[in-house]
Amino acid sequence: MSRSIDLAVIPGDGIGQEVVAQGLKVLSAVLPQDVKLETRKYDLGARRWHATGETLPDAELESLKGHDAILLGAIGDPSVPSGVLERGLLLKLRFAFDHFINLRPSKLFPNTASPLAGRPDIDFVVVREGTEGPYVGNGGSLRTGTPAEVATEVSLNTAYGVERVVRDAYERAQARPRKKLTLVHKNNVLVHAGHLWKRIFDAVGQEYPEVTTDYLHVDAATIFFVTQPERFDVIVTDNLFGDILTDLAAAVTGGIGLAASGNINPTGEFPSMFEPVHGSAPDIAGQGKADPTATVLSVALLLRHLGYAEEAARIEEAVAADLAERDGTPRTTDAIGDALAARVSG
Amino acid sequence: MSRSIDLAVIPGDGIGQEVVAQGLKVLSAVLPQDVKLETRKYDLGARRWHATGETLPDAELESLKGHDAILLGAIGDPSVPSGVLERGLLLKLRFAFDHFINLRPSKLFPNTASPLAGRPDIDFVVVREGTEGPYVGNGGSLRTGTPAEVATEVSLNTAYGVERVVRDAYERAQARPRKKLTLVHKNNVLVHAGHLWKRIFDAVGQEYPEVTTDYLHVDAATIFFVTQPERFDVIVTDNLFGDILTDLAAAVTGGIGLAASGNINPTGEFPSMFEPVHGSAPDIAGQGKADPTATVLSVALLLRHLGYAEEAARIEEAVAADLAERDGTPRTTDAIGDALAARVSG
Ligand SMILES: CC(C)[C@H](C(=O)O)[C@@H](O)C(=O)O
Ligand SMILES: CC(C)[C@H](C(=O)O)[C@@H](O)C(=O)O
Repeated sequence: MSRSIDLAVIPGDGIGQEVVAQGLKVLSAVLPQDVKLETRKYDLGARRWHATGETLPDAELESLKGHDAILLGAIGDPSVPSGVLERGLLLKLRFAFDHFINLRPSKLFPNTASPLAGRPDIDFVVVREGTEGPYVGNGGSLRTGTPAEVATEVSLNTAYGVERVVRDAYERAQARPRKKLTLVHKNNVLVHAGHLWKRIFDAVGQEYPEVTTDYLHVDAATIFFVTQPERFDVIVTDNLFGDILTDLAAAVTGGIGLAASGNINPTGEFPSMFEPVHGSAPDIAGQGKADPTATVLSVALLLRHLGYAEEAARIEEAVAADLAERDGTPRTTDAIGDALAARVSG
Repeated sequence: MSRSIDLAVIPGDGIGQEVVAQGLKVLSAVLPQDVKLETRKYDLGARRWHATGETLPDAELESLKGHDAILLGAIGDPSVPSGVLERGLLLKLRFAFDHFINLRPSKLFPNTASPLAGRPDIDFVVVREGTEGPYVGNGGSLRTGTPAEVATEVSLNTAYGVERVVRDAYERAQARPRKKLTLVHKNNVLVHAGHLWKRIFDAVGQEYPEVTTDYLHVDAATIFFVTQPERFDVIVTDNLFGDILTDLAAAVTGGIGLAASGNINPTGEFPSMFEPVHGSAPDIAGQGKADPTATVLSVALLLRHLGYAEEAARIEEAVAADLAERDGTPRTTDAIGDALAARVSG
């Protein structure tokens, strides 16, 4: 285990700045004294784009490559045309660093404001593909802005890309007590991509006889997320369905303020990137109202990825304890960060 | 107003048969004596495919064209490869008959098993595009079944197609008390299709100054469906997002057993088609367990489309009254149909 962490930090836009500050606070507090933590901040996002027109210059992409991991706050601002920062920065990082595992755990913590509160058995993880599908940016438009406009978006799916994420999901299912894996797609309509996924899902499953498998169309899956989320253990799905399902998962568990994620390159060839699932929430930015818990939980995923499993668990326990004591009294972003930092170092 | 209805009936697969029978029962009961109802059944679906290999022969498609409307139960069976009946029959009808409005109302009836029960203000309608987007069937695969396979799905979007559905949605919003229209897409990632939608949404909105508008990414929309569904009035969205959101809408309101839909060709060039949102539910088929209410409510949409607004309202009132008296005692499909038929004729 490396006893130093060289971390790139991209606070980004809106509440990204505030929540990342708390994530770093908790990270510093949880790390043993002998672990050297180095951080380097990258000024990327709306401010930078307005100032220079840049989203992610090559030199910075190159420099980011050298870090052990990346902590990201949130990307996107209404002052920037929709898509510019998302495609030019966030997705560019996910694709350039081959983050093919987009890991998004969902757990119903006690004492949360979920409409499904009181159902303690919700504990699943979505393994969202991160480098293919409708997210590849393969589309275009013709006669743009005229009544004769045509616009396309192409979902690209490869056996190579699907197999590696499906295999990762089987490994995760195999390592969990329930050993259950659900594939979510829409193979009754998107038959080419859907059948590719299903064929590979079934084939790889041969190697994991202990894992119980299941297939759901994405529309049916949303129903079960609301009516029967306990049925899920590990879910594997494509980039777009994973985007949709993980916001929904957050909504039915503790809310988007608690949803963490890791964009993981399991080969270690490139640094993995950890970020809350929520967006930049410009409406509450700068007011100290954002809940930094999702970022703090993303730091736990980051630590586990870098081999600090014990420290990751300490953060998760601290969050569970903090949530259990919440009584509805509003606390600032900073106060929640302080409380979590105190718990993990205590 | 025509005083005869020439209806095509496609019961289809699984519970389709049972629920359609109740839909027809209620339809007969609600119609005034002087309206002549003619029905013709089309044997299409899994049984036919197994027997003849046909999904929808040209002659039947041609014959269906001659009816005033189509009532459909459900399509799809595990004994048929996924996609064969969906693409070859259900979607073929929606595309051939240019059903560009896929209308899906959502309402939280009192006394239903929704996790959001007790929130009476949920009453919105999703206007789902029905003839474009990722549903066009434009995709393929190369080196199928090998480790070098590549599979694509192309979402096709045209100004022509988007404008007509957006305009229809504005008309519906304009006619409702709250006059609010929300566009749902994912224009920060699917920038070509998403910007086409957003541009047209904004442009057409100029003609409807009384309608308040709103834009949400599809992932964020799923959160609001769970946490704040009251915020929605009319939603307009693409074919795939509409598929996902309307199953979720059903889950957060009365359940998929109550969700009705109309595949509408507003020009009248082709017959419109009405069907419950739920699938063929092979696990409970033939057991008299299916709730026919979604089909009965689809019959109400059918009647409204054909100009029988008063009869449509009578069905909706009957359903509301029936739901209000439900006490959890299980009733058969047939018993629910009888009860609704009695109410509408009473
Ligand atoms: C901001 C956006 C591009 C992103 C996505 O769609 O992946 C976000 O919604 C997420 O889930 O991380
Ligand atoms: C059966 C399937 C093809 C269909 C769809 O995806 O449109 C269904 O889910 C629906 O919503 O009507």
